[in-house]
Amino acid sequence: MPRRLRSAANPPAEVYKRMKTVDIVIVGFGNVGRGVARVIAQKNQTFKKSGLNLRVVAVSDLWGSMVDERGLRLKDVLEMKCERKKMSGLDVINKVGYNILVESTPTNIDTGGPGLKHMKAALENKKYIATSNKGPLALQYAKLMSLARKKGVELRFEATVGGAMPIINLARETLAGNEIISIRGVLNGTTNYILTRMEQDGLPYEHVLSEAKEIGIAEADPTYDVGGIDAACKLVILANSIFDMDVSYKDVLVTGITWVTPEALLLASKAGYAVRLIAECRKDGTLKVAPRLVPRKSPLAVEGTLNAASLITDLAGEITITGKGAGSIEAASSILSDIMYIASRLQ
Amino acid sequence: MPRRLRSAANPPAEVYKRMKTVDIVIVGFGNVGRGVARVIAQKNQTFKKSGLNLRVVAVSDLWGSMVDERGLRLKDVLEMKCERKKMSGLDVINKVGYNILVESTPTNIDTGGPGLKHMKAALENKKYIATSNKGPLALQYAKLMSLARKKGVELRFEATVGGAMPIINLARETLAGNEIISIRGVLNGTTNYILTRMEQDGLPYEHVLSEAKEIGIAEADPTYDVGGIDAACKLVILANSIFDMDVSYKDVLVTGITWVTPEALLLASKAGYAVRLIAECRKDGTLKVAPRLVPRKSPLAVEGTLNAASLITDLAGEITITGKGAGSIEAASSILSDIMYIASRLQ
Repeated sequence: MPRRLRSAANPPAEVYKRMKTVDIVIVGFGNVGRGVARVIAQKNQTFKKSGLNLRVVAVSDLWGSMVDERGLRLKDVLEMKCERKKMSGLDVINKVGYNILVESTPTNIDTGGPGLKHMKAALENKKYIATSNKGPLALQYAKLMSLARKKGVELRFEATVGGAMPIINLARETLAGNEIISIRGVLNGTTNYILTRMEQDGLPYEHVLSEAKEIGIAEADPTYDVGGIDAACKLVILANSIFDMDVSYKDVLVTGITWVTPEALLLASKAGYAVRLIAECRKDGTLKVAPRLVPRKSPLAVEGTLNAASLITDLAGEITITGKGAGSIEAASSILSDIMYIASRLQ
Repeated sequence: MPRRLRSAANPPAEVYKRMKTVDIVIVGFGNVGRGVARVIAQKNQTFKKSGLNLRVVAVSDLWGSMVDERGLRLKDVLEMKCERKKMSGLDVINKVGYNILVESTPTNIDTGGPGLKHMKAALENKKYIATSNKGPLALQYAKLMSLARKKGVELRFEATVGGAMPIINLARETLAGNEIISIRGVLNGTTNYILTRMEQDGLPYEHVLSEAKEIGIAEADPTYDVGGIDAACKLVILANSIFDMDVSYKDVLVTGITWVTPEALLLASKAGYAVRLIAECRKDGTLKVAPRLVPRKSPLAVEGTLNAASLITDLAGEITITGKGAGSIEAASSILSDIMYIASRLQ
């Protein structure tokens, strides 16, 4: 076969004529922030070949900040070998020169936490943002977006919903021109793991929950996950960004999975159904998270910690996407795609 | 619930400050071209609210061209009430003022047909293109892209693969930053319909094929579909655009579905598998279309005329998307999303 294989890399849609340097600060250096640093360290040589140089100029966590406006050595940063200055995340956001803030501090869905302050400060400074932090977006989406518009920048947040599954940018950009009529999704991996295990092995809820805690799939206090609050926050971000609503997670009708029994799952299974914690938003205003029967063959009947979402659209009909809903590198994947988008728009 | 529902429309990611008018010519006015006209007619009032005016200034088919540089009345165009000038598609491409060519003439995978000439002419004139026409891209992808780059414009082709399922832009833009390691997909709805019906009702191939012809799912001469050539052309477009290869459909190892028996399907089914015509491309150079066993629970085991594709990526892991693989409005959906992308880049 006269096959010509030129290169095995996914060629960037964007090829820059001259080297474009984009400066990034990472505020919040836990799983996600470290994932972003690791991914940039790993890929920047490849990006440079298409003319894009991603340079991390500051990294902040609770214990201080590592700053170098000529670009930090990410290997040293990841090994925590750099000198830490007594600068807070907010100091870095206000005083360092950069293009994009990666906001990846732990989320707070009641107050927005430090993330909300960080985002507002960065937007005031006309900086772009790529974030995995649900709280601020679930609480003050409209306010943040209006500030971003006023300042002529963008706040992007693919990593807040569905981990590596790019549901937001898929609905808003890849399907541009389509009206989205409804979204139904499995947006919480912990509950999906629990439901899958309960069904497959006929085990009771409490048993599987302890197991999930042991292997790190459920948190010590699993209330947000099993009570459906985490899924509700994600649904609210979809509702605000895709349906242009202005709602918070308190507007969602939520039922968790704590009452689901192995017997109910068995009955459903015999009838050809699976029980899944489905988050649903419709353009008529429906906002609901609850365990629901889905046909076993439905793409929403995903197993384990997978996430899935089905969009009903006016032109494309039903489009379904599935992917890994959690994980450090998975979240970094979504943040990176937002960084790439912003980079392509920067002058 | 104090829910504030502002608007039910998918807000465009792009909101234009002043009205931006984008002029479009549609060359090839069959199912797809008419679908594009219908969709623009239906949606333009909504688009105008976000500052985008899509104006169709010419429509060409084999019988001539309707031209009005102030914008055709699409209702009249669709009812064929406009006066036809004796201008060919090529005349329109070379002589009319416009921004984007929608190329939707019937495809020719051996020579590229008129579509290839149209695309080259438009690119030479520094015009953007959104197309559903597989042939030219399956034959001369690298040449066309290099011409587009040289002229500073873009040739977009989401509608050539997977109908409304946005696999190309998903892989290249929505997952930007990810390296794609492999793609496996069900890319031909006709063969998938035939395999599904054969399995579900235990019917022989010939029987289901005749039925598919009757209801318009298979063409009178079904060779391209059932022989795997159509899937191979689509695979080649994925290989060239996502893996940066430079291959044509003759480089694909192709096995069609004509030898598949209901007995084989039954055996597979009993073991928990479905047989699907899988198109596969890997970064090591593998390019293959063949009937293969896929686990019944796999998202690739789609039924009827649906399409599906699984991308294995280095960061996001496995991402799977399913959607309607054919249809006039479905193809128009993909062309429209390409038009929206181009519009956002036009000055």
